[in-house]
Amino acid sequence: MAPVGAGLWRTLRAHQVYGANTDVGKTIMSTVLCNAIQQQKQKAAFLKPVSTGALDDADDRHLKRFGAGTLTKCLYQFDEPVSPHIAAKLKSVSQPFILISDDDLLSSIHKTLSDWARSEIDFALVETAGGVHSPGPNGNSQADLYRPLRLPIVLVADSRLGGISSSISAYESLLLRGYDIQSVLLFRDEYYQNHEYLRDFFNKKSIPLVSLPAPPAKPLQPDADSQLRDEEAMSSYYQKVSQESEILRLLEEMSVQNTQRIERLEEMANRAQDLIWYPFTQHQGMSAKDITVIDSAHDDYFQTFNSGASTKPDSELRPTFDGSASWWTQGLGHGNPDLSLSAAYAAGRYGHVMFAGAVHEPALSLADYLLKTLDNPRFAKVFYTDNGSTGMEVAIKMGLRAACDRYGWDASQEKINILGLKGSYHGDTIGVMDCSEPSTYNQKVEWYRGRGHWFDFPLVKMVDGVWTIAVPEELKADLGDDVEFDSLNSVFDLELRLQSESGQRYKSYIHRTIENLVQEKGMKFGALILEPVILGAGGMLFCDPLFQRCLTAVVRENPELFSAQNNTPKSSPSWSGLPVIFDEVFTGLYRLGRPTSASFLDVHPDIAVNAKLLTGGLIPLCTTVASQEIFDTFSSPEKSDALLHGHSYTAHAVGCTVAVDSLKTMAEMDLNGSWDEFKADWGTDWDAKSASATATSSDVWSVWSQGLLMDLSCADAVESIFAIGTVLSISLRDAQGGGYTSTAAKGLQQKLAVGGDQFNVHSRVLGNVLYLMSSVTSKQVSLQEMESLLRASLL
Amino acid sequence: MAPVGAGLWRTLRAHQVYGANTDVGKTIMSTVLCNAIQQQKQKAAFLKPVSTGALDDADDRHLKRFGAGTLTKCLYQFDEPVSPHIAAKLKSVSQPFILISDDDLLSSIHKTLSDWARSEIDFALVETAGGVHSPGPNGNSQADLYRPLRLPIVLVADSRLGGISSSISAYESLLLRGYDIQSVLLFRDEYYQNHEYLRDFFNKKSIPLVSLPAPPAKPLQPDADSQLRDEEAMSSYYQKVSQESEILRLLEEMSVQNTQRIERLEEMANRAQDLIWYPFTQHQGMSAKDITVIDSAHDDYFQTFNSGASTKPDSELRPTFDGSASWWTQGLGHGNPDLSLSAAYAAGRYGHVMFAGAVHEPALSLADYLLKTLDNPRFAKVFYTDNGSTGMEVAIKMGLRAACDRYGWDASQEKINILGLKGSYHGDTIGVMDCSEPSTYNQKVEWYRGRGHWFDFPLVKMVDGVWTIAVPEELKADLGDDVEFDSLNSVFDLELRLQSESGQRYKSYIHRTIENLVQEKGMKFGALILEPVILGAGGMLFCDPLFQRCLTAVVRENPELFSAQNNTPKSSPSWSGLPVIFDEVFTGLYRLGRPTSASFLDVHPDIAVNAKLLTGGLIPLCTTVASQEIFDTFSSPEKSDALLHGHSYTAHAVGCTVAVDSLKTMAEMDLNGSWDEFKADWGTDWDAKSASATATSSDVWSVWSQGLLMDLSCADAVESIFAIGTVLSISLRDAQGGGYTSTAAKGLQQKLAVGGDQFNVHSRVLGNVLYLMSSVTSKQVSLQEMESLLRASLL
Repeated sequence: MAPVGAGLWRTLRAHQVYGANTDVGKTIMSTVLCNAIQQQKQKAAFLKPVSTGALDDADDRHLKRFGAGTLTKCLYQFDEPVSPHIAAKLKSVSQPFILISDDDLLSSIHKTLSDWARSEIDFALVETAGGVHSPGPNGNSQADLYRPLRLPIVLVADSRLGGISSSISAYESLLLRGYDIQSVLLFRDEYYQNHEYLRDFFNKKSIPLVSLPAPPAKPLQPDADSQLRDEEAMSSYYQKVSQESEILRLLEEMSVQNTQRIERLEEMANRAQDLIWYPFTQHQGMSAKDITVIDSAHDDYFQTFNSGASTKPDSELRPTFDGSASWWTQGLGHGNPDLSLSAAYAAGRYGHVMFAGAVHEPALSLADYLLKTLDNPRFAKVFYTDNGSTGMEVAIKMGLRAACDRYGWDASQEKINILGLKGSYHGDTIGVMDCSEPSTYNQKVEWYRGRGHWFDFPLVKMVDGVWTIAVPEELKADLGDDVEFDSLNSVFDLELRLQSESGQRYKSYIHRTIENLVQEKGMKFGALILEPVILGAGGMLFCDPLFQRCLTAVVRENPELFSAQNNTPKSSPSWSGLPVIFDEVFTGLYRLGRPTSASFLDVHPDIAVNAKLLTGGLIPLCTTVASQEIFDTFSSPEKSDALLHGHSYTAHAVGCTVAVDSLKTMAEMDLNGSWDEFKADWGTDWDAKSASATATSSDVWSVWSQGLLMDLSCADAVESIFAIGTVLSISLRDAQGGGYTSTAAKGLQQKLAVGGDQFNVHSRVLGNVLYLMSSVTSKQVSLQEMESLLRASLL
Repeated sequence: MAPVGAGLWRTLRAHQVYGANTDVGKTIMSTVLCNAIQQQKQKAAFLKPVSTGALDDADDRHLKRFGAGTLTKCLYQFDEPVSPHIAAKLKSVSQPFILISDDDLLSSIHKTLSDWARSEIDFALVETAGGVHSPGPNGNSQADLYRPLRLPIVLVADSRLGGISSSISAYESLLLRGYDIQSVLLFRDEYYQNHEYLRDFFNKKSIPLVSLPAPPAKPLQPDADSQLRDEEAMSSYYQKVSQESEILRLLEEMSVQNTQRIERLEEMANRAQDLIWYPFTQHQGMSAKDITVIDSAHDDYFQTFNSGASTKPDSELRPTFDGSASWWTQGLGHGNPDLSLSAAYAAGRYGHVMFAGAVHEPALSLADYLLKTLDNPRFAKVFYTDNGSTGMEVAIKMGLRAACDRYGWDASQEKINILGLKGSYHGDTIGVMDCSEPSTYNQKVEWYRGRGHWFDFPLVKMVDGVWTIAVPEELKADLGDDVEFDSLNSVFDLELRLQSESGQRYKSYIHRTIENLVQEKGMKFGALILEPVILGAGGMLFCDPLFQRCLTAVVRENPELFSAQNNTPKSSPSWSGLPVIFDEVFTGLYRLGRPTSASFLDVHPDIAVNAKLLTGGLIPLCTTVASQEIFDTFSSPEKSDALLHGHSYTAHAVGCTVAVDSLKTMAEMDLNGSWDEFKADWGTDWDAKSASATATSSDVWSVWSQGLLMDLSCADAVESIFAIGTVLSISLRDAQGGGYTSTAAKGLQQKLAVGGDQFNVHSRVLGNVLYLMSSVTSKQVSLQEMESLLRASLL
């Protein structure tokens, strides 16, 4: 099933008609608009995707009769005048069962409109049934069901008693799903005067409202005679009303808005090129055409401006798979209405409220729930900041203080370093930049001063269909040769591997190295910092988990390496050797298929940082979680000994509320087996193990299929490949040797950007590596389309 | 007018009844619930704040008749069965005009419920009129009008055709105003089956839904006989339905929820003490009772848990004035429904979408609108980050690179410093910490290394009723003695003061100092960094604007001070001497009453950083704006020369959308004269000037009255005072000499925390300084209450 694009055509003004309630006059309003269009010698068309009620009353029939030549179409017709989800059930009893999937319905609408755009039709209305949240045939709210099309809305308001309220609520429901309400229509009722109130209300939002005289009353007991009179009365009503100047102005306005929207999309890239200083971007050589214009987004897809369409009657918008998960943040789909509502609720209940010295439910609940999710007996306290970089700054302050405090070092006089891995990356603020070895990212930052030692390490990759631990040449003398594995799962069988020769060699190499750094070179270390399993920004480096496990073990088991004094921790569980900081900003919270990436190593860090997926992919928020002993280090009678860090929006209620909902949603998906199909694919080995394994937490799996990896890893252009959780990483052969400045992956990126028939793919490259990342809610069908595209591009 | 507290009582379960639409059976449902309560030998009460329609039909009458002894009360009764805002108008024609202000209405409700809580009433329902957004007597939506009470909601859903939609939309409208919907009631209709659909829907949200049989039909043509039958039928209906087990379970559930909510509020401080690591907080000596529990917030007030009330029948919640504007972020009021909707719209339309290489409307609009707002011809490009600290890190990277590039310095080999002021503060990430001189904030941060020179400077303060420029003793030889001014406005008459002796002395002192630092001490400088007008976190230091003006002028007019070579800028407008960075994170965007604080100095910086008020006080977002020439410094064929900085949520759509709305709202307030009353108060001098001044941008004013300043500055405990824009700063006398560790302001803080009869005050102190800060929407009446409290505390 291909994704459905949003609808926007140069040659066709298409709108969706929603009603504030049922029976507010949607069809009459549609008929008025179509009449007015036809009278202007333009072509109108009317689409009723789903109609319920007796055929005679059907809305498209009404349009046929009174629409002055309007083309009409109905996709699905049910007899019962009830909500479509019930009508669909009734129909399936008395008639052959017809399954209308929501996706089919959307595709049919999009196709109909696209056909009309290619024909002589100028103006189209797509009419919904009932109110905005009336269920479609499958029981989903229409406001959600039709959202991917995101047609501009004509809202028919309610002129009856209570109609002010239902009209505003309907408007709000549409707004919080990201719809643009372009105009409001309603009947005039001089007693209730809803139109007066609503005109003021919508004018403040710059939305034009047109009120029309009520239509002639329907005959109570229709006979042939009265029916004729009714028809005549309606005809003359339409004749008159469709010429009202307000209607003509509104149609003009709707036409102008369609044009302006396209013109704005056309100019946005140029305006951005003028005004925006992009992150991580060399602007020289960049031009406006390199900028993707995103109109909106839904689930896994952006709707991007299809600038090539400017002379064709195709839709101006095209689905583009968000293949970087919007810089690794996306978890629960773009435009997720549950997260919108959560955000709005928190904004409505609190706004942002002061956090120092105060507490509110979202911050407290999140702290509580997060500690449960991370499931680390060491963790006791949660510190909030705004993003991964600031959260890591806090982690470093915590770690260094704890080490200096225990070992009695005066950091203002001595350089305290960190231990880490080559290719690590923890953010762009200068303090955390100092935690990475000199590289392209930081070498030209004036205040950067790398402070640490960074180990090189063996990599996990699939090469020619075989899972391999690839040891860097320089390390082979110490660590041994490359090793092959029969599955990714066996790579993670750390208890077994710890006993192997590799385990022994790793530990002894690490021990020797640290000893040398401290004793020969006189270096002091204040923390061990790791991105567990995958080093993201450094180039999607899949570190041999055994190496990270051994590194942690050596540090913890040999505190005397770091200081001859005070190296025995007071209590247990407590940090030993060095505080161990895990940067799970990228790898945590289900990005790799598990609540924590620490669980892959079976290591409990003393400090951990989470962000990105924390809010399901909506807004910035970060947590730094620490053990009680780390916390106690800052406890003193002196205020100046406290961790004097805090941003103005610390623990903002909107972020915390969204985060609680996101974490719960992901945990429920985990519990409900939402990823069982993926796990089954990775289960050849996994199944065999699971009988003896104690819990599902022992599984290693990916949303990307094992078959894809096997095939692509054998492609000529591919050096190696891996997948874990939502991440797929393809390392392309590069004669120049790869690295951040490599352009080897650009070709594949460009092929994907052009995409297939149905959609484009946005992807990011890191040197010679192209990676793809889904959300945790990505559907198999969507991922299969992606896999087909990859095969077509590489095989 | 005192603020109204939210309603929550230990001895009274109070709920508000909202309808999904008019005529859905709110009163019948209320009667059922009250009946059931009364039958359990508990006392029920029913409050109809505003009733419309014939007296006989009035809802409180119905309750009286069928409520089995329920106490009933109606505050305002209108005859016409129309929306209250129209009824109020009609009534004012035929009857003596009665003005019901929204505040009066709220107070009456709160008082009624409080009285009931003190009496034997156990259970109270407050019934609204019509649907959730039906206008109250003054035309404001009830959902907004009643929001300060934030009673838990009983939503009566709509069982008719279309009722699924209107019920869900009503629910969403309540949710996005921060209400808690505690239960849903509706009639069973076996044909439409709304109750089935809605039960599933609300169960997913853990909200219990109870459906009841429809009440007996009303007689079409009532006579005495039928009326009696009707009454009997209704009585027996209530008799039966109020004993349904689902109703009894619901009442039990409502009771449990009330208790649990209070128990949760009681435990929150302890739980927070256990789980939270607070920003800028020394936890030693801190106990749970020091933590303010915030239930919710509205406009200028938190609703805080009134733990002292535990044995009394008072409301458990009490309004607390947000006197720190929630760490200086708050601009448009807590729980602002317009910002909630903006946030929800952006979440619904985009979620967060990738920004590198892409553009979306909110980010582009904000860049555009911000550049207009800042009104600085040098500014060309907008860079987005998440908070002031990260935005300042970016500013420093920009400034240092520009200087090193022009002067040919290799920053990896040489220490490049910044020029700034003592007491400056730019955030807590280590890079920007290095921009402040050693202080309590940073001296124990292991990686802190101050890199700069920081000038001491004269302060603006009102002492004993006189505006004074106070020159530090050590500087008097260079800068002259203290100077007195007749108004704050004349302090800002910089064109005049530049020509004065002070101006000459300032410039020459600054010139000498820099010359000495560079030539004698061999220091290199890469940027001048200032917080214009007020240095916030450093202790609310009001710097003589002339000093900042002179500092900028000396730096720009004497580029040869910094390098003997390449010191002539290529083009104009262009930076000269050093890139000038203004940190307006705190002072910008109307915090001081103007769009920029740079305008007070009449200086155009090369780089400026804005945050805090940028989103009106809702969520973190930051912009770093720079000139074209600064931008061009990073332009090269090398990717590694680019500004390689960027956070995952860069330019998140929710923040940008809310920011555009906030900036526009504040600009409109400015344009519409929303602050004219404040300006008039500060206008003795201002009025005289404005005749000759060219624009309102020449004004200097505050929401705090001049009279308050005059009086408090003469108080014994007060050393000095100042106010500008929304900021009031009171410096208390301290025998120990003040500074960050002073406790002189604690006494005043505690007095304010206890507050008056009506509300408490949350405030923050910085050493011996207590400051108060309002939002830009604070009402005069609210501020006057605050001023009374201050007078009572200090005079």
